[in-house]
Amino acid sequence: MRKLDNYRGIVGDDVISGTYRKARKLYGKHFLQINSTYYGGGVAEILDSLVPLMNNVGIEADWRIIRGSPDLFTITKKFHNALQGNSINLSDIKKQLYVGANEAFSTYCQIEQDCVIVHDPQPLPLIRFYRKRQPWVWRCHIDLTDPNQKLWEFIKGFILKYDMVIFSSEKYKKEDLPVEQRVIVPAIDPLSLKNKELSEKDIFKYVKKAGIPTDKPVITQVSRMDPWKDPEGLLEIFKRVKEKVDCRLVYCYDMALDDPEGTAIYSKVYRKANKLRERGDVVFVVGKNQILVNAIQKFSTVVVQNSIREGFCLAVTEALWKGKPMVATNVGGIPIQIRDGEEGFMVEPHKKEEFADRIIEILKNPSLAKEMGDKGKERVRKHFLITRLLSDYLDLLNDILK
Amino acid sequence: MRKLDNYRGIVGDDVISGTYRKARKLYGKHFLQINSTYYGGGVAEILDSLVPLMNNVGIEADWRIIRGSPDLFTITKKFHNALQGNSINLSDIKKQLYVGANEAFSTYCQIEQDCVIVHDPQPLPLIRFYRKRQPWVWRCHIDLTDPNQKLWEFIKGFILKYDMVIFSSEKYKKEDLPVEQRVIVPAIDPLSLKNKELSEKDIFKYVKKAGIPTDKPVITQVSRMDPWKDPEGLLEIFKRVKEKVDCRLVYCYDMALDDPEGTAIYSKVYRKANKLRERGDVVFVVGKNQILVNAIQKFSTVVVQNSIREGFCLAVTEALWKGKPMVATNVGGIPIQIRDGEEGFMVEPHKKEEFADRIIEILKNPSLAKEMGDKGKERVRKHFLITRLLSDYLDLLNDILK
Repeated sequence: MRKLDNYRGIVGDDVISGTYRKARKLYGKHFLQINSTYYGGGVAEILDSLVPLMNNVGIEADWRIIRGSPDLFTITKKFHNALQGNSINLSDIKKQLYVGANEAFSTYCQIEQDCVIVHDPQPLPLIRFYRKRQPWVWRCHIDLTDPNQKLWEFIKGFILKYDMVIFSSEKYKKEDLPVEQRVIVPAIDPLSLKNKELSEKDIFKYVKKAGIPTDKPVITQVSRMDPWKDPEGLLEIFKRVKEKVDCRLVYCYDMALDDPEGTAIYSKVYRKANKLRERGDVVFVVGKNQILVNAIQKFSTVVVQNSIREGFCLAVTEALWKGKPMVATNVGGIPIQIRDGEEGFMVEPHKKEEFADRIIEILKNPSLAKEMGDKGKERVRKHFLITRLLSDYLDLLNDILK
Repeated sequence: MRKLDNYRGIVGDDVISGTYRKARKLYGKHFLQINSTYYGGGVAEILDSLVPLMNNVGIEADWRIIRGSPDLFTITKKFHNALQGNSINLSDIKKQLYVGANEAFSTYCQIEQDCVIVHDPQPLPLIRFYRKRQPWVWRCHIDLTDPNQKLWEFIKGFILKYDMVIFSSEKYKKEDLPVEQRVIVPAIDPLSLKNKELSEKDIFKYVKKAGIPTDKPVITQVSRMDPWKDPEGLLEIFKRVKEKVDCRLVYCYDMALDDPEGTAIYSKVYRKANKLRERGDVVFVVGKNQILVNAIQKFSTVVVQNSIREGFCLAVTEALWKGKPMVATNVGGIPIQIRDGEEGFMVEPHKKEEFADRIIEILKNPSLAKEMGDKGKERVRKHFLITRLLSDYLDLLNDILK
């Protein structure tokens, strides 16, 4: 069970006592978070740490997940992609299924708490089915810079009922939304299996077990197999790097079994990497096990993120926390985390040559790598740990319940 | 959204008005059900109908699912099997993970309702982590006639804290349990996708789409691919039947992707049925789609259930509701539903020759088949529909909140 005191050694006494102070005004308040899944994805990971910590500091925090059929989640995945700019066929049947699932759930989800926080689009319409007796906050984890307009208009109809919206970046704020908007940057838990300290022995054990040879520098991307993460482009980047520096590339990927797009792109990259794979220069590892991901990040020489579009990108935060220099694209929340030339290098999307040059620069310069890695870790410690997120939520609750 | 009034045409005015009468005393009472999943399996199916109906008759019914890691569900699946008689290595780490998952969940599941019903072993230990302020009921859907004794002793430690235990059959009551025990027989929802009326045209459409030829009588078993359902034995039974009457066998199966036992038995049966499959005499159909299962049951000439062990077996209830004569083994809740020679025939497990003879008898005698089918449908209408289950729960709540 997570306890705030366990973070004292990492973030220092002042952060801990400041957090307790903020929580005191909220004693006895009840507070509900609703999202769409207990497992899988960044939101579930954050809530897994945040909710128990809230309870630990004395708030009555509750966590529920909406009941959704596979159909609902197919639709909301399309919504997610369209809110990030894809096109969508916004049919009446999709709308009905989406709203209907929320209405059905509302009949067996009694809400008596003092404040409700709803995450992402899946449970967004819930608010329509309650007599509102408390502040409701919509917490959006999606990049909303360029949403499909038709879908945005539809979604907005629900958002307008909320008292506040939280985005992950200033860039996502919407001018056409007459609701209070606030930015809370996501965070990682330094004590989770994915981020906790590991012994050198354990790191080697996991890396070897995953079939990654340990004789050369390793470049790693941890991401879903998804067009937004451009794994195909990364392979070309790697080929350029490989001409100059002998090294390996690890795709530490995660893939939903029912994701046809992911399966297709995986097969394509896997086939294209055929020869490199056979020589062990490119390794594909399923990152299902959190400690394994942790070990691979810790073992890597450079961690990269070749995304075309991103939310905040917690994979970057995790790598920085492990003291790794990064080369990443200048999209979504990545530039909030990496300052070009400080914690790593920023490259515009699709600039493969530059991306490769930056990796080479780090590989050839271990002292630069070390310096960047140290800066990255320190930056995460200050800004992107779960303790800061907890503190932001306490501020929000204090403000909204005032 | 399910409404009690929609069942009037099926169960009659008296049942409907009797149910409303029972519910009146419970107006304003809050009531929570907890199980382990929103989708998959009989418990989730029942709650999907029961909880909205409770709300519809005026009770404040709430439904939550426990958060469990894949590890937890692996362990509780072993518990399930061991409670039905399998052996188990009941290690400390299994116990800790089981209890720990419940403790963690309790920190973000506030319980203020007037009564709590907990389903099956997964959330059973929850009660240990609350200051008990209301009656708690453990609803067990498992066959407990011959549990692994060590596990039973461990499980009993939690059950003792409950005010009442509900079993699906008188046979499962435990003498060594000093807690009030009650029997509530499960039920099906005649308006669900799995059980609702379908037009002849739709039935044929789904059956053909599933690759089932429509020119011969069809024998169907709807079940998981699971040793308890003996699909291998069923293949031998079918071979005997096939010698006397030209017909087909359909395995309408469901299989968890992560169930190694299921995958193994499926491959074995699939291989053994090789020639029969090629000729189209044996057809394997994944029963993921509820309307498809409905259509296959409605299209079948005889439905069989060759189980070695069963809980109540809702698959039998569903087939009887479709007016199908049944041949089934005399285990678990099956003899509660089928009286030998009335709604179908009962055979002891492993008596393949007799099982085959009974199928042949029905196939050769259409008027017997019709008579049995009619009796089965009537028996389900009287005893095994969701309206009766709702009524039983209302009785229970009235008694326990008295």
